[in-house]
Amino acid sequence: MAVYTDVSDEALARFLNDYDIGQVVSFKGIAGGVENSNFYLQTDRDAYILTLYEKRVAEADLPFFVGLMDHLAARGFPCPKPIRDKGGQAIKRLENRPAAIVSFLSGVDVQTPSLDQCRMAGEALADLHQASQGFEISRANALAPAGWPALAKASGRDADKAQEGLADLIESELAVITAAWPNDIPTGVIHADFFRDNVFFLDGKLSGVIDFYFACNDYLAYDIAVTINAWCFDKSLVFLPGNAAAILEGYRSRRPLQQSECDALAILARGAALRFLLTRIYDWLNVPKGALVLPHDPTEFSARLRFFRDEGAAVFADLL
Amino acid sequence: MAVYTDVSDEALARFLNDYDIGQVVSFKGIAGGVENSNFYLQTDRDAYILTLYEKRVAEADLPFFVGLMDHLAARGFPCPKPIRDKGGQAIKRLENRPAAIVSFLSGVDVQTPSLDQCRMAGEALADLHQASQGFEISRANALAPAGWPALAKASGRDADKAQEGLADLIESELAVITAAWPNDIPTGVIHADFFRDNVFFLDGKLSGVIDFYFACNDYLAYDIAVTINAWCFDKSLVFLPGNAAAILEGYRSRRPLQQSECDALAILARGAALRFLLTRIYDWLNVPKGALVLPHDPTEFSARLRFFRDEGAAVFADLL
Repeated sequence: MAVYTDVSDEALARFLNDYDIGQVVSFKGIAGGVENSNFYLQTDRDAYILTLYEKRVAEADLPFFVGLMDHLAARGFPCPKPIRDKGGQAIKRLENRPAAIVSFLSGVDVQTPSLDQCRMAGEALADLHQASQGFEISRANALAPAGWPALAKASGRDADKAQEGLADLIESELAVITAAWPNDIPTGVIHADFFRDNVFFLDGKLSGVIDFYFACNDYLAYDIAVTINAWCFDKSLVFLPGNAAAILEGYRSRRPLQQSECDALAILARGAALRFLLTRIYDWLNVPKGALVLPHDPTEFSARLRFFRDEGAAVFADLL
Repeated sequence: MAVYTDVSDEALARFLNDYDIGQVVSFKGIAGGVENSNFYLQTDRDAYILTLYEKRVAEADLPFFVGLMDHLAARGFPCPKPIRDKGGQAIKRLENRPAAIVSFLSGVDVQTPSLDQCRMAGEALADLHQASQGFEISRANALAPAGWPALAKASGRDADKAQEGLADLIESELAVITAAWPNDIPTGVIHADFFRDNVFFLDGKLSGVIDFYFACNDYLAYDIAVTINAWCFDKSLVFLPGNAAAILEGYRSRRPLQQSECDALAILARGAALRFLLTRIYDWLNVPKGALVLPHDPTEFSARLRFFRDEGAAVFADLL
C-alpha cells in the first residue's frame, strides 16, 4: 500500500488540462497497491483513478496493460477503462513518471468470499480469458518457471530468515515443479494476480476486476491455479475445498476445461504457490529504505506450497 | 500517510449496520494523515470518511474533537460533520479501535497557495475562532510551551543527528521563547494544525477544513502564528511576506486583532516553529518498526525557527 509519489497541485492542473473530464472536485492518494501510486480523482462529471507507474512497472509494458484494459472494456468486461486525453493519448507523463487515468469502478473487495462470490470470480476469470482473445499485443510472463531460479538464487539461504527450512523447501520444489510443468495446454492472456483485493462486488454481483499490471501470456489454467491459491485458504491457512469447487464451477460454466488442463492443475497450483513464495521472500528480504509498504508475509505461501505438495493431487482429483 | 489498521469486510458490514447511511458502493484506505487510519466510504446515498483512531489520539479527547466538529458544522463552518448511528452515537468502535464517520468534504488542498487562497485561509481561521465560541468542552494544548522541555529532553543531543547544531538551537530558543511567551492575550478553541493539506479549495472558494485532532484551547493568535509558519515559506524555505500579509488581512476582516496580539505575533511564530521542530525531531528519531509513514523533515522547521529568531520582529513590524 502506498503513494510513492506526491503530485503537486500545479503539475496536476497542467496534466488535467490535456483531458476533457471536467473540473477536479477531490483528489486523494489511495493506500493499497505496492507497485504504483494511485489517486482517487473526482471531477464534476465522474470519478477516476489516476495511476503513476513507479519503477517496478516497465514503461515498455504500458501499451500492453493499457491496451488490454481497452480491449477488455470494449468487450464488456468490468475492468477500468483507460481515459484518453484530447490528443487520443492514454499513457502520459506526470511528476516525471508514466501516468494514466482510468475509470473508477464501484464495489468492494472481500476478504472472506462466499461460495457464490467464488463462483462469480471463476466466471469472471473465464470471461477475461475469452474476452482477451484477439488482443494483439503479447507480453511474456516474467514470473514464469524460467524466471524462478534467479529469484530463488537471489534469496538463497537467507530464505531461512523468513522461516526455518524455506531455503531447502524452495530448492527441492523448484526442481520438482519445473520438471513436471506442462508444455502443451491452452494459452492466452492471463491476469496473473487475481487476488481477492483485485475483485470488487456490489449488490450481490461481481462489479469489477482491477490491477492488470502482472497480466501476460501464459497457460490459462495457471490463472485458475493462482486464483485457487488466493481465494481458497482461510486466515489459519486451512484449504477451503468448497471455494475451489465454486471457482472451478463458475469458470467451467463459461469456458470448458480440456482434460490436459485438469491434469495440470495440481502442479500449476503448486507452482503458483512457489511463484508467490519466491517474490514475497525476495520483497521481505529487500525492503527498501524509507519504504511505505510492509512486505506481505512469505509464510502464507510456504504453507500453501507444502499443502499442494502433499495434498494437491488428491485435492484436484476430488474437485475435477 | 497511512492506513495503519485493515478493516475486514465482515467487521465493516457489522459496523455500518448500526447506521442509516445506505449501502456501501466503495471503500478505500486513504494515504495521508499520520495519526489515524482514514477510509473513503461511498454509499448509494453520499460520501463519507471513516476514521479509526490510532493510539496517538487519546480516546478521552474524542468527545472534544467530535463535539467541536458538530458545534462548528452546526454554525456553518465548512468542517466534516460527525454522522450519528441509529442510537445517536458518533463515537463507536471498529477493529478494536475508537471509530467515527464524518461527512466527506469536496475540494483539493494546494501546495502553493495564491494570495487569494491565503486571504481565504485567514478568513476561515478567524471564522473558526468565532464559531467555536460557546463550545462547552475544553482541552489543554499538550504541545504548549509547558510541554516543550520534556520533548526537547527526549531528543537531547540526538537532535544533532537530524542537523548539526539543532540541539544547541533548541536549548537556547526554548529558554528565550518560553521566557517571552505572552500570558494575557485572547484565548479560545484553536485548530493548532492549520497546514495547507488540511484546507480544501473548490471553484475558487475555500470548501473545507479538516483534521481537528490537535484542536485545543490556547491563544487565538498562536493559531495565526502556526498558519503563517505553514503557509508562508516556499519550497526553498524562503519567507513569503505577501502570503503572511494576505492571511492577516483575511483574518482581521473577520476578527480584529488586539494590540496585545499584534505585539505577541513575532514570539508566537517563533514558538510555533519550535513546537513543530520539536515533534518532527522526535518523530524523526523514533520511527516505529514497520512504520508506514516517512517522518517529515525536521529541518523545514529549524529553518523557520532561525528565520523568526533573526527576522521575526522586523517582519511583523512591517506586516502589522
